[in-house]
Amino acid sequence: MSIYQDIKEKAYLANMQLPKLGLVLFTFGNASAADRAKGVFAIKPSGVAYEELSPEKMVIVDFEGHTVEGNLRPSSDTLTHAVLYKHWEEIGGIVHTHSTYGTAWAQSQRAIPIYGTTHADHLTVDIPCAPPMQDDRIEGNYEYETGFQIMNHFKAAGLSYKEVEMVLVGNHAPFTWGKTAEKAVYNSAVLEEVGRMALLTEQIRKDVPKLKEALIKKHYDRKHGTDAYYGQ
Amino acid sequence: MSIYQDIKEKAYLANMQLPKLGLVLFTFGNASAADRAKGVFAIKPSGVAYEELSPEKMVIVDFEGHTVEGNLRPSSDTLTHAVLYKHWEEIGGIVHTHSTYGTAWAQSQRAIPIYGTTHADHLTVDIPCAPPMQDDRIEGNYEYETGFQIMNHFKAAGLSYKEVEMVLVGNHAPFTWGKTAEKAVYNSAVLEEVGRMALLTEQIRKDVPKLKEALIKKHYDRKHGTDAYYGQ
Amino acid sequence: MSIYQDIKEKAYLANMQLPKLGLVLFTFGNASAADRAKGVFAIKPSGVAYEELSPEKMVIVDFEGHTVEGNLRPSSDTLTHAVLYKHWEEIGGIVHTHSTYGTAWAQSQRAIPIYGTTHADHLTVDIPCAPPMQDDRIEGNYEYETGFQIMNHFKAAGLSYKEVEMVLVGNHAPFTWGKTAEKAVYNSAVLEEVGRMALLTEQIRKDVPKLKEALIKKHYDRKHGTDAYYGQ
Amino acid sequence: MSIYQDIKEKAYLANMQLPKLGLVLFTFGNASAADRAKGVFAIKPSGVAYEELSPEKMVIVDFEGHTVEGNLRPSSDTLTHAVLYKHWEEIGGIVHTHSTYGTAWAQSQRAIPIYGTTHADHLTVDIPCAPPMQDDRIEGNYEYETGFQIMNHFKAAGLSYKEVEMVLVGNHAPFTWGKTAEKAVYNSAVLEEVGRMALLTEQIRKDVPKLKEALIKKHYDRKHGTDAYYGQ
Repeated sequence: MSIYQDIKEKAYLANMQLPKLGLVLFTFGNASAADRAKGVFAIKPSGVAYEELSPEKMVIVDFEGHTVEGNLRPSSDTLTHAVLYKHWEEIGGIVHTHSTYGTAWAQSQRAIPIYGTTHADHLTVDIPCAPPMQDDRIEGNYEYETGFQIMNHFKAAGLSYKEVEMVLVGNHAPFTWGKTAEKAVYNSAVLEEVGRMALLTEQIRKDVPKLKEALIKKHYDRKHGTDAYYGQ
Repeated sequence: MSIYQDIKEKAYLANMQLPKLGLVLFTFGNASAADRAKGVFAIKPSGVAYEELSPEKMVIVDFEGHTVEGNLRPSSDTLTHAVLYKHWEEIGGIVHTHSTYGTAWAQSQRAIPIYGTTHADHLTVDIPCAPPMQDDRIEGNYEYETGFQIMNHFKAAGLSYKEVEMVLVGNHAPFTWGKTAEKAVYNSAVLEEVGRMALLTEQIRKDVPKLKEALIKKHYDRKHGTDAYYGQ
Repeated sequence: MSIYQDIKEKAYLANMQLPKLGLVLFTFGNASAADRAKGVFAIKPSGVAYEELSPEKMVIVDFEGHTVEGNLRPSSDTLTHAVLYKHWEEIGGIVHTHSTYGTAWAQSQRAIPIYGTTHADHLTVDIPCAPPMQDDRIEGNYEYETGFQIMNHFKAAGLSYKEVEMVLVGNHAPFTWGKTAEKAVYNSAVLEEVGRMALLTEQIRKDVPKLKEALIKKHYDRKHGTDAYYGQ
Repeated sequence: MSIYQDIKEKAYLANMQLPKLGLVLFTFGNASAADRAKGVFAIKPSGVAYEELSPEKMVIVDFEGHTVEGNLRPSSDTLTHAVLYKHWEEIGGIVHTHSTYGTAWAQSQRAIPIYGTTHADHLTVDIPCAPPMQDDRIEGNYEYETGFQIMNHFKAAGLSYKEVEMVLVGNHAPFTWGKTAEKAVYNSAVLEEVGRMALLTEQIRKDVPKLKEALIKKHYDRKHGTDAYYGQ
């Protein structure tokens, strides 16, 4: 048995949740799970159908993006995962999808506005949208640069990856993360649903105001504050 | 066996209907069932996945919001349920969801206009939308105040909770109720579908008129009037 | 065994198709099947959940709307079915639903414009929308008058029920029919899908032109003309 | 066993994927698989429900459109398939559907604009929309002419069928193809999802710009270029 069995199983389970939650068509998505002590993560192999996945097929990659174990080629987005794991040291899982509403917002290059408590239960700001990359970086090491595109946008916008666990990459699609791969999957589903609700809200009312500050604070605090009283 | 077994089972069954009807993602919803004779209600524990629920896990709470039986923390919305049970004395069940269309209408802070007979079969007025709360009440006992926000809006708008068994809380999401928990679940599904149809109706025609008075009366009466002839 | 067993089973099977095709929520729909030789039709009992239906529970009603056999109360829309069976002598089945898109078009009081060949494969004109009824007729024998509202609109618009097997009743919802109950169910699903496509078409392009005459004729003829070459 | 057993099974499997992927209602679609060595293709019989299909029921047709083997009448769109197989010599499979979003774009007579990387992963241009046919050709050999309508549009627009494996036929619906029937099915699902995302993108932002050239090139190359690194 592989010494990476634990994260292979976590990555496998996270990947298998994506089609079940309606977040991927065919192979348009990938999830990974990190083992910080060993400095590696397990990720979906590229272009393999979900119904053919197994824990054994997960590829083990280090934070520089080098394959450590596995016979299959890792996801084409592997370098983006590697960059984020390397620089954001408390992340344990990452998910990338082309989910329908998340992708439509990314294509429109708009952040998803905070319109209600469903959004505020998870983060207190608009879901950020990193701008499309400059041409020379696209033509260079594209997936590697995508990681920096995300990090640079967080830096410029004064956002913390510990508080905002999701981003849209302009013209492309969403990435989400969390302390575990399971939490990253959860965040992908939340982003999709919140994005769907935000579009519907704008369709119901043209000039819809953003959520008021007091409600943002209250809903976030009851789930994430020092006196949180949501969950067990 | 608990002396509250009956409402634990009713609350359990009502909660399990919510994901089946497509009304909740993850744990974004909760249903409760009251035993008026004993002055308590059974409600979903907070943050527990639907697939892990059982009647035994339901929490028994009195109408002041104090836990009477159960090892788990009750839903974070418990005080809203308690306030409504305490003041609206003929309610036997309450449901709260973040269903997609209901939540989008709540976020837009618009009542759902009565455009057709599907709506009129259930209520004769727009589905009301209580305004977002004032800041000091949000910062105070938030869930407790949410109950009063709903009741005050009904009072100000001259609505009866016996005739209008559903409400949107502005910026937040829907609450529904009924003589039984099962009826409250039914009302949540009706609100979601009526809200979806209302948005589509406005998209098909910009200046769509409200339903005419004679049709409102007729459809409501055939289900709810003294000579009702709908159902068995 | 009932002498009406044959239509009871046909009506049962037609009704059971409605939730399977996503055309009804709860009990918001009903299908019937006629036996012309015996001058009766079998129809869903009122307010009974689909999962509790059986052929035995279907109610047998004559074309005047009188119950001939069955212990349950027939659908509240029974008189509309009776009127249509009585006057449109080649109909063998009728379906009424509150399907989402069909109902939204009915609420908007617009006919569904013919925009493409999916529509033209089934009928060569817009899907008609009968106007809402006059108040005195709503207050009178409402369901009976609904049948006449449909027939009068067909007469005024010069439409044949043999060529146009579907209608929207303004502010209300769709009715469809056909030589068999199975065909009426098929028509309900076609109406819903064509209505969904028509709204999307208008959202993609504001000034979308109607389908050109030559395509209307061609697609209809290949399914319904004297030299039809669609199907077996 | 038929000497065409291989393509009968491929065509059968391709057809059965269509309802599973949500691309067809009833019998509104058809898939075929070609055997270039034998100069024939296997196609769905006309008007037969998917649940009643079997490999044996597939009809074998040559590239002139003549039935070579089979007791059932082939799909009414058979001549369109025949024309495309005859002239586009590297195609091994063709699919035609009336999928919801693809058909709505075809009805609007607009090409689907390239707004993001989901689109660019598959083709580098807008998904083309062939204009509706001239009346005399509609009234002539309609399905045969549909094939030429597609090819002529590709010629006029300078498109290669090897690089752009999908098209909308104005007022009608999508056709897709590929080296295999399986790939043609895949392309039909991609077209539907990309069309859905494109409409949502325009709804989120009115003046949304097309995808920048560098991203188009990058995403296409990583899947299709000489140094492709997507898949195994």
